[in-house]
Amino acid sequence: MKPVITFCVLFFGLTFFLAGQEKIDYDAIAKMKSEGMENSQIEMIASYLTDVSGPRLTNSPGLMRASEWAVEEMKKWGLKNVALEPWGEFGKGWQVDKSYVAMTEPYYMPFIAVPKAWTGSTSGLVSGEVMLVDIQTEEDLEKYRGKLNGKIVLVADDYDVTATFEADGNRYTDEELKEMEKYPSQNGGSGDYSARYARYRAMREFRNKVNDFMASENAALIISARRGRHGTFFTSNGASYAPGSEVATAEFEMAPEYTNMMKRLLAKGIPVKLEAEIRTSFYEDDIKGYNVIGEIPGTDKNLKDEVVMIGGHLDSWHAGTGATDNASGCAVMLEALRIIKTLGLQPKRTIRVALWTGEEQGIHGSRNYVKNHFGDSETMALKPEHEKLSAYYNIDNGTGRIRGVYLQGNEGARPVFASWFSAMSDIIETPTITIRNTGGTDHLGFDAVGLPGFQFIQDEVEYNTRTHHTNMDVYDRLEIDDLKQMATVIAIITYHTAQRPEKMPRESIPVVTGSN
Amino acid sequence: MKPVITFCVLFFGLTFFLAGQEKIDYDAIAKMKSEGMENSQIEMIASYLTDVSGPRLTNSPGLMRASEWAVEEMKKWGLKNVALEPWGEFGKGWQVDKSYVAMTEPYYMPFIAVPKAWTGSTSGLVSGEVMLVDIQTEEDLEKYRGKLNGKIVLVADDYDVTATFEADGNRYTDEELKEMEKYPSQNGGSGDYSARYARYRAMREFRNKVNDFMASENAALIISARRGRHGTFFTSNGASYAPGSEVATAEFEMAPEYTNMMKRLLAKGIPVKLEAEIRTSFYEDDIKGYNVIGEIPGTDKNLKDEVVMIGGHLDSWHAGTGATDNASGCAVMLEALRIIKTLGLQPKRTIRVALWTGEEQGIHGSRNYVKNHFGDSETMALKPEHEKLSAYYNIDNGTGRIRGVYLQGNEGARPVFASWFSAMSDIIETPTITIRNTGGTDHLGFDAVGLPGFQFIQDEVEYNTRTHHTNMDVYDRLEIDDLKQMATVIAIITYHTAQRPEKMPRESIPVVTGSN
Repeated sequence: MKPVITFCVLFFGLTFFLAGQEKIDYDAIAKMKSEGMENSQIEMIASYLTDVSGPRLTNSPGLMRASEWAVEEMKKWGLKNVALEPWGEFGKGWQVDKSYVAMTEPYYMPFIAVPKAWTGSTSGLVSGEVMLVDIQTEEDLEKYRGKLNGKIVLVADDYDVTATFEADGNRYTDEELKEMEKYPSQNGGSGDYSARYARYRAMREFRNKVNDFMASENAALIISARRGRHGTFFTSNGASYAPGSEVATAEFEMAPEYTNMMKRLLAKGIPVKLEAEIRTSFYEDDIKGYNVIGEIPGTDKNLKDEVVMIGGHLDSWHAGTGATDNASGCAVMLEALRIIKTLGLQPKRTIRVALWTGEEQGIHGSRNYVKNHFGDSETMALKPEHEKLSAYYNIDNGTGRIRGVYLQGNEGARPVFASWFSAMSDIIETPTITIRNTGGTDHLGFDAVGLPGFQFIQDEVEYNTRTHHTNMDVYDRLEIDDLKQMATVIAIITYHTAQRPEKMPRESIPVVTGSN
Repeated sequence: MKPVITFCVLFFGLTFFLAGQEKIDYDAIAKMKSEGMENSQIEMIASYLTDVSGPRLTNSPGLMRASEWAVEEMKKWGLKNVALEPWGEFGKGWQVDKSYVAMTEPYYMPFIAVPKAWTGSTSGLVSGEVMLVDIQTEEDLEKYRGKLNGKIVLVADDYDVTATFEADGNRYTDEELKEMEKYPSQNGGSGDYSARYARYRAMREFRNKVNDFMASENAALIISARRGRHGTFFTSNGASYAPGSEVATAEFEMAPEYTNMMKRLLAKGIPVKLEAEIRTSFYEDDIKGYNVIGEIPGTDKNLKDEVVMIGGHLDSWHAGTGATDNASGCAVMLEALRIIKTLGLQPKRTIRVALWTGEEQGIHGSRNYVKNHFGDSETMALKPEHEKLSAYYNIDNGTGRIRGVYLQGNEGARPVFASWFSAMSDIIETPTITIRNTGGTDHLGFDAVGLPGFQFIQDEVEYNTRTHHTNMDVYDRLEIDDLKQMATVIAIITYHTAQRPEKMPRESIPVVTGSN
């Protein structure tokens, strides 16, 4: 273990010398910095993906607007092979057409709430008394059988909404970055996904049972609380998007301040009445999922069949406009391509962007893309394209600037990134290389078939406090200067990946442990 | 100046000795701490003032609910002379009966918004394209004459909504408290109120002109942005509450994230459509304002005609339930009375609580009370009751615990507070006494006629970032442990004020500088 750390420490003392091991195109870097930091189009791109397109739940009209805009925009820039590429079957699209809820007794107050994804509509404007139910287990359902017909049902859990004495926004300190450089004591991405997935599956099964119960009991509307405070809250999925699945009872997720208020009123024996209307639409005419693809073709006759891929997921949750999760990543990747293309740089390898979909429901778009193009992670049956991919770079950690990279265990990539970072010390503060993994998003599918897939260390800003999956994840959550830096860094890294004589170093192909 | 600071420094070294100058009832203090910290009713009281009563704009039904509840509750506790005491003419009551706004083009999204206080209704559910107007001066109105008929008008200003890297909540540090102990270099309350009031008056006059213009142009709805972020925003008044005044055009104040979004869409030439409905009610059957009064009568035959007053304003703005501005202060004062009454303590002087109204529109309720009972601050014509008031204690700085007191220049009160604080070192961290003033609320009317009116130094918590005047100033913004501490401290101070042989030291009567 020791040598790793020693090397790492040495490296930062010897940046210049080691930089020499990679060929750095300083002229191209100067141009890319200038274009990315001074002539940035990131605001325009981000605004079209968020403000203009709207919420981008997978297979929703909003996602389609964003996808089609990205296609048209890339064509305008002169990119090639621009297309919506189907990746397999996803399921129903869904969007909100009307959303209103207010307390009417003991007095009038409009509430901040958002329909849960893929849940149904109310029967027009409904009104009635709120009934508090406590359903923790399947057995609890029996307590309410025959009692919920036409009711507005409050199933609110408790969430901490007290004052916060820590900042919503934060950036990595030098100490935190130093800690990350150490050989992993923790691995963001190596966690027990199977255990987590089992919990998620159990939760989903229970949710489906509750949904069936509420539908069979003919409840008028369900209200549930979610984590958050001050008007921000974290939203989620409420029902199945499988083709042909039953439509679940209309359900609001609500800022916990209001559900707490209702619970305190009910505890005093004071009746609470609401009026509410939800109208949602489902789309089943095309249940396939699509990724957005575009390329700058390679120009070197020996290398142009090889590919450097960059991407991020374009789909979002439905309550905001998915600004930091993950219009930011998509805008950065598009802008990085625009920088390279605008400057007339001639990459030796082909550079391809992919804006994935179905990420929020299980990283479907990228995993399927990998399976369709590169190989099957279950059997490790590889396809010819597997040999042609140099690397995949992903952005999906919000709006915060790049502070370094997760090697995902790929030790061979360390000196390569180190060289590149040495030429970006004016735009990356204390660039950090960690052997650790980070998980939860679209590079994992690449990693799973032994392809070098990387995510970057990004300042968190307000990701876990205010933005990702919240109703307030809108354009104004974006830190524009950070996005400019990211796009510039990605352009530089991508271009150099396309130019280097060898493909990016790979780890050995994962061994199939065999489930069958 | 020097002796003041020296005394102050000495004092904290000699607490015990100086405490001896005031008679401290340690037995009563022990009981009050136990009742206030262990048997607190503050959650119940605060919930009735907020959750149960609702928004408490002056002369609104919500304020009347809270006032009547306080009256009934004080009667239950056995308090005397409990009444709604009229203080003079205020004007129209107002409340929101329906509030809904959503974007419908280029896609559907409900917006977080609140009607401005005292503005009118829309003609049912209205819908239409948004028109951006820029009105900074009276001359700007002419640009829009004849163009606003039936339009939804966006007059949004720009507000900073970027990420916050400082905590929403904060408490005083020891250093900050030490700084406050110094002879004033700054005075929160001594500022140029006349200049500030002139600005406010000019702003209000301009607002009234814009209102008249919008009404004459028959605009359907006005949308304006306000400071805030993440779903929180600060709300305000939009029209006159004078009896018989014209009803202003319906107007929403909106979270700036949405107004910014609309401005970016319009700047791209993309039409924005909204649908919206506001229904507001006005109440003119009784335009008088009322304070809530209640007493624990004094028991000493020589002192029972003298009075110690405590209070806070019960009225709030309309968007939340006015939890930290100022249900907190009212709940604390009621709970302090309850503590004294429940324990069967026999105050020598009468203790009187006043829950003021009309504070948010210009400190009307307390100023008029002072004028009706104690004296006219313009002529300095004093009434007999002036001689009978020992002190007035006010709470109106949010939910944060008491850290000390502002002497408002009343140097004679310093050793008295110092003695009392010395017996509360277990519930007040680093108790701080500052000669400085603090302004903006209901103790000012007392101060203006030479009566000792005090406010306390309170931890700010989220007052200026999240709570006061915001749509999210609801019960969950309250820090319950802080309220318990405040009520206990107030009970102890109030009781000791009632017991000491002399009234609280006074400053000399202010000299009338004479405006006529």
